Amino acid sequence: MDYQSQLASILFTLRHGAQCARLPGWDEDIANQVLTEAARFTAAEIDPLDGLTERAPLVLEEGRVKLPPHIVAAYRAYRDAGWPTLAGAEEHGGQHLPHVLASAVSEMLAGASLSFQLLIGLTAGAIRVITSSGTPEQRAAYLPRLVSGEWLSTMCLTEPQAGSDLGQTRTIARPQADGGYLLSGDKIFISGGDQNLTDNIVHLVLARTPGAAAGVKGLSLFLAPAVLPDGRRNAIACLRLEEKMGLHGSPTCQLAFDDAEARMLGGEGEGLARMFEMMNAARIEVGVQGVALAEVAAQRSRIYAAGRRQGKGGDGAGPVPLHRHADVRRMLLTQMALVEGCRALVYRVDVEHELGANQPLVDFLTPVCKAFASDSAVEAAQLAIQIHGGYGYLTEYRVEQILRDARITQIYEGANGIQAITLADRLLRMAGGAPREAFAREVEDAMEAAPPVARGALGDAKRHWEDASAALMSRSGAGAAAIDYLRLTGLLAAGAAWGRLEAAADQAPHPARTRAAAAFFREAMLPECGHLARRVVQGIDVGVHSDEVFNA
Amino acid sequence: MDYQSQLASILFTLRHGAQCARLPGWDEDIANQVLTEAARFTAAEIDPLDGLTERAPLVLEEGRVKLPPHIVAAYRAYRDAGWPTLAGAEEHGGQHLPHVLASAVSEMLAGASLSFQLLIGLTAGAIRVITSSGTPEQRAAYLPRLVSGEWLSTMCLTEPQAGSDLGQTRTIARPQADGGYLLSGDKIFISGGDQNLTDNIVHLVLARTPGAAAGVKGLSLFLAPAVLPDGRRNAIACLRLEEKMGLHGSPTCQLAFDDAEARMLGGEGEGLARMFEMMNAARIEVGVQGVALAEVAAQRSRIYAAGRRQGKGGDGAGPVPLHRHADVRRMLLTQMALVEGCRALVYRVDVEHELGANQPLVDFLTPVCKAFASDSAVEAAQLAIQIHGGYGYLTEYRVEQILRDARITQIYEGANGIQAITLADRLLRMAGGAPREAFAREVEDAMEAAPPVARGALGDAKRHWEDASAALMSRSGAGAAAIDYLRLTGLLAAGAAWGRLEAAADQAPHPARTRAAAAFFREAMLPECGHLARRVVQGIDVGVHSDEVFNA
Repeated sequence: MDYQSQLASILFTLRHGAQCARLPGWDEDIANQVLTEAARFTAAEIDPLDGLTERAPLVLEEGRVKLPPHIVAAYRAYRDAGWPTLAGAEEHGGQHLPHVLASAVSEMLAGASLSFQLLIGLTAGAIRVITSSGTPEQRAAYLPRLVSGEWLSTMCLTEPQAGSDLGQTRTIARPQADGGYLLSGDKIFISGGDQNLTDNIVHLVLARTPGAAAGVKGLSLFLAPAVLPDGRRNAIACLRLEEKMGLHGSPTCQLAFDDAEARMLGGEGEGLARMFEMMNAARIEVGVQGVALAEVAAQRSRIYAAGRRQGKGGDGAGPVPLHRHADVRRMLLTQMALVEGCRALVYRVDVEHELGANQPLVDFLTPVCKAFASDSAVEAAQLAIQIHGGYGYLTEYRVEQILRDARITQIYEGANGIQAITLADRLLRMAGGAPREAFAREVEDAMEAAPPVARGALGDAKRHWEDASAALMSRSGAGAAAIDYLRLTGLLAAGAAWGRLEAAADQAPHPARTRAAAAFFREAMLPECGHLARRVVQGIDVGVHSDEVFNA
Repeated sequence: MDYQSQLASILFTLRHGAQCARLPGWDEDIANQVLTEAARFTAAEIDPLDGLTERAPLVLEEGRVKLPPHIVAAYRAYRDAGWPTLAGAEEHGGQHLPHVLASAVSEMLAGASLSFQLLIGLTAGAIRVITSSGTPEQRAAYLPRLVSGEWLSTMCLTEPQAGSDLGQTRTIARPQADGGYLLSGDKIFISGGDQNLTDNIVHLVLARTPGAAAGVKGLSLFLAPAVLPDGRRNAIACLRLEEKMGLHGSPTCQLAFDDAEARMLGGEGEGLARMFEMMNAARIEVGVQGVALAEVAAQRSRIYAAGRRQGKGGDGAGPVPLHRHADVRRMLLTQMALVEGCRALVYRVDVEHELGANQPLVDFLTPVCKAFASDSAVEAAQLAIQIHGGYGYLTEYRVEQILRDARITQIYEGANGIQAITLADRLLRMAGGAPREAFAREVEDAMEAAPPVARGALGDAKRHWEDASAALMSRSGAGAAAIDYLRLTGLLAAGAAWGRLEAAADQAPHPARTRAAAAFFREAMLPECGHLARRVVQGIDVGVHSDEVFNA
């Protein structure tokens, strides 16, 4: 088996990092049962897919995407076992379990095969926005089928000319006499834009009504099913399947809407607000994916480094396991520190998101989760290749695949540079500083919970973060310092998460490992905050040079 | 055209960064003519290969590797135009031009197609070691054919159980009555281990004579041609072609030597010393490859960022080129700062290597060139993907290919962690500190040459480096701090190289770009030295934890 679900680590993190006991109706026995079964399901049904998806190409035939039969069979098993219903509302056939359990299942699925998890991962956001903004008819038509997994959904945002800049969206939605709309335009990079897993696909489409304001204010959100209620196929064609660096089991589609029938979801001009309901959930989910991929990278590296013997030990004895070498230990500890720190951070934000009692904290940490966890996945994957040496470069070992799969998480659902600008230019000042202050309190709470040895390091890091925050607030925009501020905040947030874990290390599944990774994070990684803060405070000049510098 | 040879930048770097005027017989007009022709050749013959090699798989048929016809044709054109002879000795048919010109040609070839450049890149090291250690007969038999490009060569070092740890080499060389040897053993990761470009392939093989000392002291180096002087094929079989993350046009072979006929090169037990003659040249060459790939990443990014319009400008005007956004400028400037800094560093070391007057400096900087330039290539490639956003993840744009190709440069010819240990544990103390002091003088010379604005920053960085050096020398081994010390030395070395370039910025092909990249390196990148030095001085504890932490 390639991927080992980290059931015990996840349960430890849910208890001590995310403090799930705060969730109404949280039952640790149920959590244990659900995740034990999820680990079993993942090992049996999903883990075998991942190598296969690299070798069985996706096919576009007569405008329809065909996934290989093993993916179709795995999805059927997933649906038949009821996994899609986990966190759904009871009125729509859901089990109404805490969302963080669905996230933990996502971690396992994504760890076993990100391609597979991505096929199903966007539906939770669609359920969220249809629940909040749908008409009673829309809720009745879509929610039971999305909750059961009978149908899946997509997010259709990006267009060729409008990548990070949604204000340039051109897809037009012309109103019809029956209250519906006809959509026309091209959408690109649509994950699961077509597939043969479900009888219908619910597309959530950002488009512009005629005469609407320019930019993002003129956008509305639309529901366009691939198959219409009367059984006709909607005028939505998959023009092409993108060939990608990785994720070879996930169909990334270019879709053409050609007078496709649609209904508006929410009010006119509310497109961006509705999209952000989906998007913020999706960004936390990318954080979960980051944890999953960092975990795979770490566990494969640990296995390899324990089994491969190279070089002499300190006592001059013959070949010793790779993990006896200091530089390899550094890489393994970095991976462990990133995995456990990100897991605790991401699940904590997921729980706060569900609790809904501290929205400013969730706002502040959502871009941090997305970016810091995806950056960590790529870093852990890079280290995994390096630990494997020449073997890491061979496809056969499938370590390089982790990097190829992980690389997109730094880009999709808002490139990490965009997350940084959101954090440093908007959230830092928003609502009179409420999100920033909520985060400061979160760090202070973690410091109180942390063991004494960790408090000093966290206090230093927090002071660096405050200096950087103050410097940014004294300027009109963060500019090139935004990315440093994001990383600084990510390190501090993960450090705070580590503080809670370290305090409970005795109850961790591998106490020695948790303590060692906690100490490594604190001593070797957290001090980067000082460096980053100095650079933020100093400012980086990228603005005074003329365009001449940058012309091709 | 995909890759644009940076003729003017290279010439500027050779003049002001590497100070080639110090080379006996250096003629700038000849350099200009040679490199102008090399740029033309690269554009016409090599650049078109790179996309093709991704789509035309290499084939192993009946134990022989078949490269696609376009690679065969390109090699023929390369050889027929006399490019292999550039730096060869006149007595063997070479043109006896400075080696740094061959390196500049390598940069162009590798920028256009690393797969192609790798096929030919190892031969220079073979020529070097056969020249220094071969018998008159060996020199006469091999050198004219290697210099002309009639034959190519390989380095056969790694074995399945002996990766970074050559002491575990098992290939055995049994002496024969005629003074020759029979080689038996398996070698892996052999670049160009078989091909259909040349009639013969000269394998340089590390093996152990019967009864030799254990470890690296028992190794000797052997010459084993694929085709023997009497026309028989030697008993060397290609068992398999490795499938890799990238470099899809370069055959990486597993070779089986089954009583293959060979001759010893140099003396018995001198294998490691002879190998290092090749290896040190190969490590500088990896530095050149790093520069080439960072350059491709930077130029593609610049073109894309100038052409793609997203988001608002400072004045609220409509979509502006990506390069107007501060975070994109940061990424573009980082790439430029890495490319030009590494180019100046690598060519300077290449020239010192050729001059032979300051071997301690070359010793100290060879691992730094290899590791810092390959790390920079990967960083520049990562940034290129990020700048391209979703398009960067698509194979069609071939930006992700830069990362896949570049990734091996951090591993082959000695993984970067090994380079770090070489620097921090061996070179730092070697010969009473002569290499370390030679580097300190090199930095001081560069500070004198640098413009006044750069001297303070370089002085700060140098003090940090001295603090870190002193801390390491006070300990018994650098341990996990070695990698920080390597990066610290790399930043300082590139900073010193930048000092010379910045002083001459008026004569750069793009003075504004050179000045902007110099300032960015100095203000945004060089200060990392302080952070790295603090971590080195503090020390990173990875040793006290028991193996329990690292067990799979």
